[in-house]
Amino acid sequence: MKIILIGASGTLGKAVANELGQRHDIVRVGRNSGDLHADITDSASIRALFEKVGSFDALVSAAGGVHFGALAEMGEKEFAVGLRDKLMGQVNLVLIGREFANDGASFTLTTGILSEDPIRYGASASMVNAGLEGFVRSAALELPRGMRINAVSPNVLVESPDYAPYFRGFKPVPAADAALGYARSVEGAQTGQVYRIW
Amino acid sequence: MKIILIGASGTLGKAVANELGQRHDIVRVGRNSGDLHADITDSASIRALFEKVGSFDALVSAAGGVHFGALAEMGEKEFAVGLRDKLMGQVNLVLIGREFANDGASFTLTTGILSEDPIRYGASASMVNAGLEGFVRSAALELPRGMRINAVSPNVLVESPDYAPYFRGFKPVPAADAALGYARSVEGAQTGQVYRIW
Repeated sequence: MKIILIGASGTLGKAVANELGQRHDIVRVGRNSGDLHADITDSASIRALFEKVGSFDALVSAAGGVHFGALAEMGEKEFAVGLRDKLMGQVNLVLIGREFANDGASFTLTTGILSEDPIRYGASASMVNAGLEGFVRSAALELPRGMRINAVSPNVLVESPDYAPYFRGFKPVPAADAALGYARSVEGAQTGQVYRIW
Repeated sequence: MKIILIGASGTLGKAVANELGQRHDIVRVGRNSGDLHADITDSASIRALFEKVGSFDALVSAAGGVHFGALAEMGEKEFAVGLRDKLMGQVNLVLIGREFANDGASFTLTTGILSEDPIRYGASASMVNAGLEGFVRSAALELPRGMRINAVSPNVLVESPDYAPYFRGFKPVPAADAALGYARSVEGAQTGQVYRIW
């Protein structure tokens, strides 16, 4: 399969490349690194990416930022960051990518445990992750030509110790375990699923 | 209690006013009707509303639109409608309203069954409803001064037959039953909950 991997140089992206690269051709995409560059907060940049890559069999997104901070210090502006980046950035990869996708292609987006299990400072992440999961469940009903869509929702990663103080009591998962969720989505047959890695 | 009811003239809002108005003072707010007017897509309009109302004990929102349509015909622009209106409109009622809320005040937002059970044409509603529920679960951890926040997620309403063709097989609920969810939130003690009315 020809797989486009967005966020290929991140902790999660590298693990996904290790897992899926054993069996498939990976087009590594990053904001400033990888085979090709794209900024998912910019629809024109997304479209330019797909025009360069052409048709594909799977898209995996392991990209998207949110504002992480105390709710008391957050207003509309701080919430807009995650809506534009992690939420609509990934949704636009689907809305634009479907035009270029082969029959039966899959889309796999990244959410995270905060959609279901909230923590302090995570209001935007909880909103965005849950919203993405709602989109995935619904878009699965309407994507044409046998296309599929799933999300992977990882726990905090062993390889991201900077986040550990915010996730006390959560058992971190190795990025390689999270990568298996992407393999289930890409190489499996299900659609509309959220693969929880925790 | 002094309760601000946003969307008071809608099908759901009228039922909420009937239920809570028996025991409390209701400030009815609508875009173009009610005791006071506000446009929840505009932060300045929300702030002006709270400045007029002053302190309050509960805010109930039964407002917020989304684009309803075929995913094939939806792009970034169609998704932006619901993000600005039903999602961030209701979130901004909390982010701004908390400054004016009495100690122990509650916020009750409206989501809907599509957050969990998708239908055709509902991709934006599923995204927005699920995102709101993620926000509610998370904001409950951080609201100050004993404030609470919950969501009510109604099924399609008996009183909204125009939606019935999109919800075949769903058993419609009377708006009066949905209104009980708002009473549980406002008059109960729980926080971070989603009250499913189905």
